[in-house]
Amino acid sequence: MSEGAVSEDRYFEDFVVGDIHRYGRFEVERGEVLDFARRYDAQPFHLDDAAAAKTHFGRLAASGWHTAAMSMAMIVDAGNLAGGGGSLGALGVDNLRWLKPVYPGDVLHATSEILEANPSRSTPGRGTVKLRTTVLNQDDEPVMRYEAITLWRTRPAG
Amino acid sequence: MSEGAVSEDRYFEDFVVGDIHRYGRFEVERGEVLDFARRYDAQPFHLDDAAAAKTHFGRLAASGWHTAAMSMAMIVDAGNLAGGGGSLGALGVDNLRWLKPVYPGDVLHATSEILEANPSRSTPGRGTVKLRTTVLNQDDEPVMRYEAITLWRTRPAG
Repeated sequence: MSEGAVSEDRYFEDFVVGDIHRYGRFEVERGEVLDFARRYDAQPFHLDDAAAAKTHFGRLAASGWHTAAMSMAMIVDAGNLAGGGGSLGALGVDNLRWLKPVYPGDVLHATSEILEANPSRSTPGRGTVKLRTTVLNQDDEPVMRYEAITLWRTRPAG
Repeated sequence: MSEGAVSEDRYFEDFVVGDIHRYGRFEVERGEVLDFARRYDAQPFHLDDAAAAKTHFGRLAASGWHTAAMSMAMIVDAGNLAGGGGSLGALGVDNLRWLKPVYPGDVLHATSEILEANPSRSTPGRGTVKLRTTVLNQDDEPVMRYEAITLWRTRPAG
C-alpha cells in the first residue's frame, strides 16, 4: 500500500500543457491482490497461480481495475495531480490499455503528461485538464496507460 | 458486496453482436466506500460528508475507480461475461465516463451490449469481444459507462 498523501492546493491555472509529472512507488502485495480480486474481480487468473499458469498471465496477476486503483493511490500521494482544494474529480477516461500483467512483488511508479487544459465554457470558475498517465513496473516497462479528463476549480480571487 | 459468482464456460463464439445482457445488483456500503477511498483514492469528497458537501458531489461519493470495480464484481457474478474457462481478461477500456455520483446506500445494476466480436488475426484460437457496459442506480439513472475490449478463447474442438 501507498501512504503519506500530501495535499497541496492546486488549481486549474497550475497545469501547463506539455509538463510531465513523475511520481509514485506502490508495492504490489500478494494479499492485497487477492483481497481486491475476491471482492471485485474473482476470475481464476486473479485468484490462483495454477489457474493463471494456464493463461498468458503465467502466474497470479492483479486485476486491471486494481492496477487502475493503485495508479490513483499514487496520483493522490503525489499531491499535485488530485486531492487538493481545487480538485473536483474526473469526468472520465479514454484509451485505457492494460499493456502487461502486474504481479505481486512488482513495484510500480507512474508518469502523467498534461495533454490539454481547457476552461469550462458552461461553468465559470472551472476547467478540465486532460492527462496521459502511464504506470510502469520496476523494470520501467509500461503496464497500463490511460487519458483522464479531470475537473478543477480556477484559483480563487485574492 | 456482491456474492455468489456463477462461472459458465463461455467462449468467443457465444457472443452475438447486438445482444444486451442485464445483470447485477450491488449494494454500495458506506464502510466499503470509505475503505476503498482510504486505500486508493483519498480525496476529501470520497472520505467526508462535509468536504463533499462543498463540491458538486453534495455528499460522500464513491471513488469512480470503486464504481468500476463494483461493475466488474457484477460482471463476474453474471457468469457469462467474464470468468469462465474461455475468458482471458481485457485489453482495455474506451470512452469511460462517470455520469453521476454513486452514494452509499445506492443499489447498482448493469447492462452490457455486445458491440463487436472479432477473431484474432495474429493468434488462432482467440478473439476479442467489445462490450458497452452501463452501470445504473436504483432509479435507473446511468452512473457510469464504458466500452471494454475483452479477450476470449475460441471453443475447443470436440
